[in-house]
Amino acid sequence: MDVKAEDFFLAAKLDMPRDTKVSKVGSNVTLINVMRIPGLNTLGISLARIDYAPLGENPPHTHPRATEILTVLEGTLYVGFVTSNPENKFLSKVLNKGDVFVFPEGLIHFQFNPNPYKPAVAIAALSSQNPGAITVANALFGSKPAISDDVLAKAFQVEKKTVDWLQAQFWEDNRN
Amino acid sequence: MDVKAEDFFLAAKLDMPRDTKVSKVGSNVTLINVMRIPGLNTLGISLARIDYAPLGENPPHTHPRATEILTVLEGTLYVGFVTSNPENKFLSKVLNKGDVFVFPEGLIHFQFNPNPYKPAVAIAALSSQNPGAITVANALFGSKPAISDDVLAKAFQVEKKTVDWLQAQFWEDNRN
Amino acid sequence: MDVKAEDFFLAAKLDMPRDTKVSKVGSNVTLINVMRIPGLNTLGISLARIDYAPLGENPPHTHPRATEILTVLEGTLYVGFVTSNPENKFLSKVLNKGDVFVFPEGLIHFQFNPNPYKPAVAIAALSSQNPGAITVANALFGSKPAISDDVLAKAFQVEKKTVDWLQAQFWEDNRN
Amino acid sequence: MDVKAEDFFLAAKLDMPRDTKVSKVGSNVTLINVMRIPGLNTLGISLARIDYAPLGENPPHTHPRATEILTVLEGTLYVGFVTSNPENKFLSKVLNKGDVFVFPEGLIHFQFNPNPYKPAVAIAALSSQNPGAITVANALFGSKPAISDDVLAKAFQVEKKTVDWLQAQFWEDNRN
Amino acid sequence: MDVKAEDFFLAAKLDMPRDTKVSKVGSNVTLINVMRIPGLNTLGISLARIDYAPLGENPPHTHPRATEILTVLEGTLYVGFVTSNPENKFLSKVLNKGDVFVFPEGLIHFQFNPNPYKPAVAIAALSSQNPGAITVANALFGSKPAISDDVLAKAFQVEKKTVDWLQAQFWEDNRN
Amino acid sequence: MDVKAEDFFLAAKLDMPRDTKVSKVGSNVTLINVMRIPGLNTLGISLARIDYAPLGENPPHTHPRATEILTVLEGTLYVGFVTSNPENKFLSKVLNKGDVFVFPEGLIHFQFNPNPYKPAVAIAALSSQNPGAITVANALFGSKPAISDDVLAKAFQVEKKTVDWLQAQFWEDNRN
Repeated sequence: MDVKAEDFFLAAKLDMPRDTKVSKVGSNVTLINVMRIPGLNTLGISLARIDYAPLGENPPHTHPRATEILTVLEGTLYVGFVTSNPENKFLSKVLNKGDVFVFPEGLIHFQFNPNPYKPAVAIAALSSQNPGAITVANALFGSKPAISDDVLAKAFQVEKKTVDWLQAQFWEDNRN
Repeated sequence: MDVKAEDFFLAAKLDMPRDTKVSKVGSNVTLINVMRIPGLNTLGISLARIDYAPLGENPPHTHPRATEILTVLEGTLYVGFVTSNPENKFLSKVLNKGDVFVFPEGLIHFQFNPNPYKPAVAIAALSSQNPGAITVANALFGSKPAISDDVLAKAFQVEKKTVDWLQAQFWEDNRN
Repeated sequence: MDVKAEDFFLAAKLDMPRDTKVSKVGSNVTLINVMRIPGLNTLGISLARIDYAPLGENPPHTHPRATEILTVLEGTLYVGFVTSNPENKFLSKVLNKGDVFVFPEGLIHFQFNPNPYKPAVAIAALSSQNPGAITVANALFGSKPAISDDVLAKAFQVEKKTVDWLQAQFWEDNRN
Repeated sequence: MDVKAEDFFLAAKLDMPRDTKVSKVGSNVTLINVMRIPGLNTLGISLARIDYAPLGENPPHTHPRATEILTVLEGTLYVGFVTSNPENKFLSKVLNKGDVFVFPEGLIHFQFNPNPYKPAVAIAALSSQNPGAITVANALFGSKPAISDDVLAKAFQVEKKTVDWLQAQFWEDNRN
Repeated sequence: MDVKAEDFFLAAKLDMPRDTKVSKVGSNVTLINVMRIPGLNTLGISLARIDYAPLGENPPHTHPRATEILTVLEGTLYVGFVTSNPENKFLSKVLNKGDVFVFPEGLIHFQFNPNPYKPAVAIAALSSQNPGAITVANALFGSKPAISDDVLAKAFQVEKKTVDWLQAQFWEDNRN
Repeated sequence: MDVKAEDFFLAAKLDMPRDTKVSKVGSNVTLINVMRIPGLNTLGISLARIDYAPLGENPPHTHPRATEILTVLEGTLYVGFVTSNPENKFLSKVLNKGDVFVFPEGLIHFQFNPNPYKPAVAIAALSSQNPGAITVANALFGSKPAISDDVLAKAFQVEKKTVDWLQAQFWEDNRN
């Protein structure tokens, strides 16, 4: 195996704004993981740029194999995570440019841009070369195939038709 | 430190049915982790009994630090998990007595008892002495304090009043 | 790779009694590890059912790569493990249905059914997808080829003919 | 322990330029590790901002317990690392804004700002909550107390007076 | 904490022969682990000198938390280990001065000096700062308190009086 | 896969003196790692013999993936390591035959034989099956291709011609 600099490099254009209209929630995550830089294999780290539209959010999600540390490059973010059962304590903070925040491994967390006029940008690092991401609403209501509405109606204590309506929405959202 | 057998033992009564009415979803998880058996410290494993009422479920949740392997002792379970973004593939199976299923670390999964007349029971093991559990609906709608309804309304693409109504329900559910 | 539910599932029939006459010691271990459920790969856990005849035992053994946590489903078990040199402290307990016990990684341990009339059953979980098991007597006296009787005679401080007799027995036992 | 948001937060002002005149080499590393955010404990990640003066460099160094992934925020960086014995292969790259590069755990690496007029800025993440940093020249020539000049003269195949002169320089440099 | 060289040092006299008459089996292990060099904490390694009398042996044992790599300094050693169930394959080798052999983590292994006239010496390294050692015969027959002779008689398929006799011997051996 | 004793064995002749004239610094490291004993794969340990000419040294180097523990077989060694920034504390010790010393993972360390008449010999163990070694001077001045002299001149605060001269020397040294 002849190792070369290109195995550890990506012209990732992390300085360039991403289109936040690709999702209904107004955010766009550009993750640089081992699939994009092969040299990261087994090394336990990856990096991401996150763009937020005005009032956009990176909706509640988890990383099944990583802790995240984030700093704000532009704008303001309202961020938070929830601790496990039984406390389900919600810890949150408003972050300004230059602030740093940590989302511990596997916990549900989000970032929300509270500013109705200005976008926001963050850089985040994750403690795995392949952290994974599970957007909770998409996993529950936009999975393929759909989770049985019996299961979701009971979990959220709503009627099945509410679940069906949510699934219709997310299915459409996940089409592309 | 004088090590003794009691440090590795618990009269956990895992053979005894638990009351599944303690939760609205009709299930009850009895987890034997390092808080209950001190000798488990650093050893990377824990064990649980799960009781399901007829039509009860262990609703969608994740373990932030563990994989789970489960076998059915009594009854039938419809189980499943969803893979990470962007696939969000839903893998499911109906389990009968004696079947074994694996829920990989950090993924959202559930077990549902589809039988309207009979309870079900499972034994599960987890690959951490302190696996943690995050019941998704509780973490999102029953956290203390509540997550801003702006955040949740956008994430689930519903109106804020729907979020508020869900939060009222779960708050009540989590009171005890 | 197209992941599917079958990769995480086994119709293992862990609810069915196993034949405890397959071994002279009156026990039978059904281990569900990564060789039987490919989805367990790298996930650090496995599960087993253990059947014990009346007065049967799962004789002294170690798991070179795993801690074990066990609960009794049926009957009674006298269990124990021995700590390392120089203490060689023996910790033991009589377990009834529903009790839980932990055998730390790599230590010699056993389970014995003291009841001369009734079988016993346990479920055990192990902190590796491939824990391995070394039955001490079989490894020492039933290995293929045999360990030199000089070595074993000195280790057990017996005559060589005693070793030879033990080896003859175990070799026969391990034939199938 | 009552966990709170402040344990996972730091008003680190990572958006603000640092003074690159604090070192003779024209760079300044602001590392946010577990000593500054206690919530990072055991979580395996940390974050840094690095400022480079025109022609400034973050001189050859290693992180004994971490891989580093870096992206350029402003300016241009000439970066590289050297593989282990016996190849000692030097891999290098010129990075522009938005590019990403990986420095594998424990290898000697550097970043150099080749522009004589403009500063540069990078954000780097490290795969440990306490990665450590060993600036090679400082460790060798600026240690307290000094390494014997016999040892260094032989290692660098120079005369002892050359070593003594280097040590005098670095000792002064490390005084504050 | 003021770190000092003494935390990483021991005047262990590993060059000096040890008395191999301290045990009935004619060997003596001098292990330098974290209890003797505090600086080894969390670093995952330890070192040992092993002395063998003529015809002496380091009897069958396991290290519950470590692999061992050994080289012969003086004399000749007949060494071996047994793989796990169900193969119980015995791998062995005669080692001369300067040879190297590996005993994988948790497997039962031994070293025997086949020379009736000359002692042997080895240096071994283990992949844990606290590897532990379980001498199989001592753990089984010399534990305190004794393992029930029912358990051992069945495991070794011998009569209880044979077990009692072995225990009497080993108990005496372990007295000091 | 049919495992055999040869996979865990090497006739490494670690008892035989090595030629210390192969390097200008008067030392020779014989490392037995996973490339030489395939059975070491994933087992986290390796072993080395190090020969030192009179006044020879194993010059300042790091192991990017391992802690080292060393004992002196013959002669005397002056050894040391330097802690990370900002302390750069130098810890050193004179080791005699039979002494043991630990070099923590990733730190710069060396061994020097202060005796002008007698060689020295050590056995070292490392906490990885593939620890790697980075000889600092070789990596900096003997890499292929060469590191830019701008980078090194600034790092060592010397003139470029000094760097060029050093590189010429080491390039020659590394030719074979």
